[in-house]
Amino acid sequence: MTKPSFAVVLSGCGVNDGAEIHEAVLTLLSIDRAGGSYQCFAPDIAQRDVINHLTGQEVSAPRNVLVESARIARGKIKALSAFDASQFDTLILPGGFGAAKNLCSFALDGPECSVNVDVERAVKAMRAQGKPIGALCIAPVVLARVLGDVTVTIGTDAGTAAAIEQMGAHHVNKSHGEIVVDQAARVVTAACYMLDATIGQVADGADAVVRELVKMVGR
Amino acid sequence: MTKPSFAVVLSGCGVNDGAEIHEAVLTLLSIDRAGGSYQCFAPDIAQRDVINHLTGQEVSAPRNVLVESARIARGKIKALSAFDASQFDTLILPGGFGAAKNLCSFALDGPECSVNVDVERAVKAMRAQGKPIGALCIAPVVLARVLGDVTVTIGTDAGTAAAIEQMGAHHVNKSHGEIVVDQAARVVTAACYMLDATIGQVADGADAVVRELVKMVGR
Repeated sequence: MTKPSFAVVLSGCGVNDGAEIHEAVLTLLSIDRAGGSYQCFAPDIAQRDVINHLTGQEVSAPRNVLVESARIARGKIKALSAFDASQFDTLILPGGFGAAKNLCSFALDGPECSVNVDVERAVKAMRAQGKPIGALCIAPVVLARVLGDVTVTIGTDAGTAAAIEQMGAHHVNKSHGEIVVDQAARVVTAACYMLDATIGQVADGADAVVRELVKMVGR
Repeated sequence: MTKPSFAVVLSGCGVNDGAEIHEAVLTLLSIDRAGGSYQCFAPDIAQRDVINHLTGQEVSAPRNVLVESARIARGKIKALSAFDASQFDTLILPGGFGAAKNLCSFALDGPECSVNVDVERAVKAMRAQGKPIGALCIAPVVLARVLGDVTVTIGTDAGTAAAIEQMGAHHVNKSHGEIVVDQAARVVTAACYMLDATIGQVADGADAVVRELVKMVGR
């Protein structure tokens, strides 16, 4: 019995312009606690923007998504262009504005958003191989845009839920620690910090998604 | 019964030039799970250096310790100069090179290191009020330098252990998830990523330190 292997797709390092750090770290912890292994990936592209997380103001010094994601991954990360779906059992996307700014353009374009080419390729490759995919927080919008007919949750935000429906997907309201499992699409989602959550509630959400993915992998 | 209140002192955002992100996040999770509350702090100073975590190379664009720490704290952070020991039950220092580069100069100066003035003031104020202090990974060197006669662990690294002894403190070798408790000094330490650890083992270490601090606070 080999460990279930996770590809974790990061989108920078910091809630306002990258991957939400707690969601990313707690995803890695949940994978480890569930007996899985993980490899982090991120697109090798410039960040959409760089936000000073103390003031909330945009700053002009550019940063790279892969390079900043490497902070969360402690250097053990690969460019998403090198992702090979045959090497992994499942893929998971933590949230943060980076998922809606760097992995796709949802933060700017809403339901008309475009998806980064490497992200789209990775998601489609997993789907083609019948492998389960997880997403936290705002990241389910990426799956809605790429997969279309999929049922997800981003919590209870009505505007985002409506945008998800506009993309041909379906939204279900969920609270802390709850997940939506689309068995047909093999997609598992949880709201995490899309709700006003404590770090413990975010850990519960990440953990529930990871455990469901492990169950779907069936090892 | 009020919640035990933790001051968490961060040193940037990323293992090689700031706070170790996993240790910082897992400290916050452990505090929440233990029923505590937390407020993050960091010194409002330039980082000693900025390291590209993908390549390991130093880069020239400067970053600020408080501003980068705000990424881990999701913006809810204060300058350490505003720290008031009377408002907290306990203080904890996660690790990462930032603890040895930004909170003190140990990474450059070893046992002859100087300690940031706000860090020294915070540690001494907690000590003066008889309140317990925790430290993970390399951060115990800060306590060794400020407090002198204190018993700590940074794991099993002989060179660092010797430097701790040179500062007038005492070192005990410890493995994953183990802590050293100095009851007289009211100091609790664990090695975390100073050992070749998994993220789960780091969570165990942070959790053991936080639970011991809660016990010492006695609520």
